[in-house]
Amino acid sequence: MPKALITTVPFGDRNRKPIDLLEAAGIEYLINPIGRKLKEDELAEMATDFDVLIAGTEPITDKVMGRASCLKLISRVGIGLDSVDLLAAERRGIQVSYTPDAPAPAVAELTVGLMLSLLRSVHIVNAQMHRGEWHRHFGRRLSEVTIGIIGAGRIGTRVLNCLAGFGNPRIMINDIQPDRNLASELKFERAEKEDIYRSADVISLHVPLTAQTKNMIGREQILQMKADAVIINTSRGGIINERDLAGVLASGHLGGAAIDVFEQEPYSGELSNIERCLLTSHMGSMSVDCRTRMEIEATEEAVRFLTGKPLQGLVPHDEYEVQRQGL
Amino acid sequence: MPKALITTVPFGDRNRKPIDLLEAAGIEYLINPIGRKLKEDELAEMATDFDVLIAGTEPITDKVMGRASCLKLISRVGIGLDSVDLLAAERRGIQVSYTPDAPAPAVAELTVGLMLSLLRSVHIVNAQMHRGEWHRHFGRRLSEVTIGIIGAGRIGTRVLNCLAGFGNPRIMINDIQPDRNLASELKFERAEKEDIYRSADVISLHVPLTAQTKNMIGREQILQMKADAVIINTSRGGIINERDLAGVLASGHLGGAAIDVFEQEPYSGELSNIERCLLTSHMGSMSVDCRTRMEIEATEEAVRFLTGKPLQGLVPHDEYEVQRQGL
Repeated sequence: MPKALITTVPFGDRNRKPIDLLEAAGIEYLINPIGRKLKEDELAEMATDFDVLIAGTEPITDKVMGRASCLKLISRVGIGLDSVDLLAAERRGIQVSYTPDAPAPAVAELTVGLMLSLLRSVHIVNAQMHRGEWHRHFGRRLSEVTIGIIGAGRIGTRVLNCLAGFGNPRIMINDIQPDRNLASELKFERAEKEDIYRSADVISLHVPLTAQTKNMIGREQILQMKADAVIINTSRGGIINERDLAGVLASGHLGGAAIDVFEQEPYSGELSNIERCLLTSHMGSMSVDCRTRMEIEATEEAVRFLTGKPLQGLVPHDEYEVQRQGL
Repeated sequence: MPKALITTVPFGDRNRKPIDLLEAAGIEYLINPIGRKLKEDELAEMATDFDVLIAGTEPITDKVMGRASCLKLISRVGIGLDSVDLLAAERRGIQVSYTPDAPAPAVAELTVGLMLSLLRSVHIVNAQMHRGEWHRHFGRRLSEVTIGIIGAGRIGTRVLNCLAGFGNPRIMINDIQPDRNLASELKFERAEKEDIYRSADVISLHVPLTAQTKNMIGREQILQMKADAVIINTSRGGIINERDLAGVLASGHLGGAAIDVFEQEPYSGELSNIERCLLTSHMGSMSVDCRTRMEIEATEEAVRFLTGKPLQGLVPHDEYEVQRQGL
């Protein structure tokens, strides 16, 4: 009987359909009993005799795959592939699928919500009022600021679309693929990352974590930003150096930050002590509809594989090239 | 020499232009030295020999006007007139002006930011993460919920416009003027308030405080709402009964609330103890651009009056009728 290990949690929590799909197909499954993101060793131990992983963002390394001798498909619930050693999978003949479109609407909405909170100091005032303090903070409106978007793929362009009803903010975009056509009703200008660091009031990251983007924003880059700029990371931990960010925020630079993703999750670190750093728990894709769609799509792919049907969500060649070239 | 008392604070804080306007016109002025919203007796004592009030939301009652024997113009920085006894002003020959358009863009943006925070539990997760706890909360996207807007004047319609980039949420509108034409690209349906209470997932209030809207939403109305509905008040304190809201939230009903305005400001009360109640400090209009525009417009009106020029922001007859009829 084919067996699937579901490492991502929660799973089937708000909508049982992915579990029903597995059961209807007669697939035996186990949902990660530890209930949080697995560490490499935990996964290596748990994955030994499963045919398919329905995977979160835990590290699926060569070592893990070496132990998982039955593994033939990794079906990622989500878009990021930084957690999967694609080259090791290729060498071992393990296929990798993902659900790149499903998370985008939820991540984009959270991002715009974080922008509005940061610009109006909602997170700071809420904390003050719950302590019994009353301070009226001045804020800024989106149409009064320059918004810098780094990464204009599925999520970055959706952020743009969400901004359509807020007047005409100045928008600067830096894309990994500088010649990609961007479908947006809003006016924007293409810019170098350094120009965005220096000119934008709101900087939001929508790039994958790769060798090229790891620590892309450290102390040097943050200090180039305006003293009252705000920065948002809903993409992947490690793209902004967390310790550098905490240090610079503690020194008084930047108006604030909103961080949803961390190098180590669950996060515990210095950013928790900084009130103007708005923190969320990797919730970008955690709307009921998007999360359900991701789980169903990844499960359908697993079922297709285990019932001998053609796959529909295979990771494209480009993604392997990114890892092959250490980009 | 003509004298103006500026009761609203902060004033001229981010942009000195309103102060410069007064000085250029040779108008003597005093900015509220207490630095917070004045109580009736404080205002009555302070206002005695001023020709003009450049006023916030403090109570400008018959008693206050009785003591302010030189007063000839009340120039409100903002839109709400619940704090001004218009009929007493009329009897005493005191004119009243306001700046009804200036606050709307900032209030609408804050409102949408609060919607997004409530739907994704950002305020709750941020507090948890600052305590070192990691919980991933499920949320909802705007296009997955029904949004009920009560009051579709300057601010309510702007909220609608801000939602344009977020897909096609179901929108229910209850307007004070049920035959008013609403310019919106979004589809919406007109509804009775009770239908909104029962059907909407997000309920946002954009009505003035009048005899008719005071305590419009109490325990009975809140209990009609869905168990996971969220409610937002960026209009005026007193429209939602605060004690009822705190009681019902404490009992577990409602997904959350975002409250920017209070019966008594500065606020201190039970809502501060409820984590899923997002609290801000009457900051709806507190974007630098809108606040500056409000202060400049109200000051220009004061200068026009004191230099014998025709007024441009006089409160229309309708507003007097609302108070006359106890509506």
